[in-house]
Amino acid sequence: MERHTIVQSTQGDNSHQCTTHVTIVGAGAVGLSWTGLFLANGLRVTVHDPRPDIQLAVLSGLERIKWSLESLGYRIEKFTQRLCFEDKLHKAVADADIIQESIPEDAETKQSLYEKLGRFARPSTLILSSSASLSASVITQRMKDADRVLIGHCFDAPHLMPLVEVVPGNKTSKDCINRAMTFYRSIGKWPVLIGKEVSGFVVNRLHFALLRESIHLVNSGVISIEGLDQLVKASLGPRWTAAGPFKTLALGGDGEGIARFLERSGPMMTDVWRGLGQVDLDEKTRATLHKQSDDCYARVPVEDLIKERDEQQIAILKVLRNKK
Amino acid sequence: MERHTIVQSTQGDNSHQCTTHVTIVGAGAVGLSWTGLFLANGLRVTVHDPRPDIQLAVLSGLERIKWSLESLGYRIEKFTQRLCFEDKLHKAVADADIIQESIPEDAETKQSLYEKLGRFARPSTLILSSSASLSASVITQRMKDADRVLIGHCFDAPHLMPLVEVVPGNKTSKDCINRAMTFYRSIGKWPVLIGKEVSGFVVNRLHFALLRESIHLVNSGVISIEGLDQLVKASLGPRWTAAGPFKTLALGGDGEGIARFLERSGPMMTDVWRGLGQVDLDEKTRATLHKQSDDCYARVPVEDLIKERDEQQIAILKVLRNKK
Repeated sequence: MERHTIVQSTQGDNSHQCTTHVTIVGAGAVGLSWTGLFLANGLRVTVHDPRPDIQLAVLSGLERIKWSLESLGYRIEKFTQRLCFEDKLHKAVADADIIQESIPEDAETKQSLYEKLGRFARPSTLILSSSASLSASVITQRMKDADRVLIGHCFDAPHLMPLVEVVPGNKTSKDCINRAMTFYRSIGKWPVLIGKEVSGFVVNRLHFALLRESIHLVNSGVISIEGLDQLVKASLGPRWTAAGPFKTLALGGDGEGIARFLERSGPMMTDVWRGLGQVDLDEKTRATLHKQSDDCYARVPVEDLIKERDEQQIAILKVLRNKK
Repeated sequence: MERHTIVQSTQGDNSHQCTTHVTIVGAGAVGLSWTGLFLANGLRVTVHDPRPDIQLAVLSGLERIKWSLESLGYRIEKFTQRLCFEDKLHKAVADADIIQESIPEDAETKQSLYEKLGRFARPSTLILSSSASLSASVITQRMKDADRVLIGHCFDAPHLMPLVEVVPGNKTSKDCINRAMTFYRSIGKWPVLIGKEVSGFVVNRLHFALLRESIHLVNSGVISIEGLDQLVKASLGPRWTAAGPFKTLALGGDGEGIARFLERSGPMMTDVWRGLGQVDLDEKTRATLHKQSDDCYARVPVEDLIKERDEQQIAILKVLRNKK
């Protein structure tokens, strides 16, 4: 495959020649979504992925998510003009300004890749990893210039959801952190800087903390899966979307602030904390979850449910867009 | 004060004579919000509250929340025509179809009140408590006909947020559970039936589970209050609003379902669970939270922040309204 094959004709469009060039390493679901977002933002994108059918997979995947990018306000006619594919890693990354790596979460594979990226990419190339669990300090262990590597962890899917968790490793330079924050902001993301490399970073720790209690309550017969989803949609979901967890406390009780909240509700909260459930994901628990989830959500084709969710998601994000 | 004083002239409006009559017992912030919602839905409302300035407090409070009821689509001209005040409890509840009790959370005071309600209210009157922590089984301990009492716990504020947790006590009749669910649905709420009287019911258990980890992460310097609020607004908030926690898993990974999620992310989730923080709300923790919260949210007048949040909240709820 020729390097930087332009998928469609570039006639009359040379804008890619002076735009940021991002190389996607690993184009599964996450890499594909990043590809769509980068292209929609006018960037030049090279995709590197060992799958033999990668061109077809990416092009049909982009076709599938196009409507949501359009709904978000992007003009995406001919946006694949700035897309190319390269199956040799050293060629794919050679003139990248930024690399967004999205390969599977395996420490050995990532370490081997980063060792190569250190050799193949120009020293000025910023290297961002979509890793959801492995830290920058871990994946760069066999790499020399780890100061330019950090985690840019999206909340699936990055072409839709604004969050990027920016998590520096123990060697990441301040300059590279700033470049990452600036880059993500420039493409409409809401990057949030995470101060320490903790397991699950922040979003999955919060996600899993709520899930643990949710699974516990369903498992104990306190509420059904359908009831719990409805309950969150009718309360915490919209409230945390409009205010976030701490602003919710600051504005609670007619704006009395977090001090008054802790004074009034602290004892009740501490009492609830003591009784929160411990969950074992054993066969019985899994069977309960599978059955209830299927009863609720397997009666309608899943593509229809995803479309419906994404339409609602986009409408909600549009509400947030003007006022974070 | 005369019983059922009509605050404004009823000339030309006798609709209240055949509508449901709800008595609010306790009209603090929650009772006031219920009052506005019930009136906006065309119900007749009697307010009972021992505060000497209760009429003024409720009327000015209604004036303050009117704009949000209007934004939600309610026509509320002259809606206080169906509002009256009664400072004798036995008179206030004598011909109520439904009582929504919203007095402070104190077991002794509630038990004493429910003993009286059992004697003063007609046997057919449905009695709903806004209690956030005390269960129906506890508050009815000195009452004879506890079969008609259950918790109808809103998510503040009930005139805005759709959730009502319907939590029966150990003596509540099925008929009364059905009546409560039907009543709340009839006024546009999304009642969710809770199967067991657990501490914090469901919404506060989920709320506090996420808050515990949030406080832990801020306390450990992993993220700031401002960063965490931004992170949730950009990810979990909108996602849980569009899909709820379990539907999120069912549709995750291109719709592979919860079984695949547990298979792929179960080990990581279990690992994160093991490391979730324990929090002590000691002086140092409180001081950190107060300082960061004030730095973020005390620079703008709190009424402005509340207005801004509520406007965004209403816009989000309108997105949900057509498709739950």
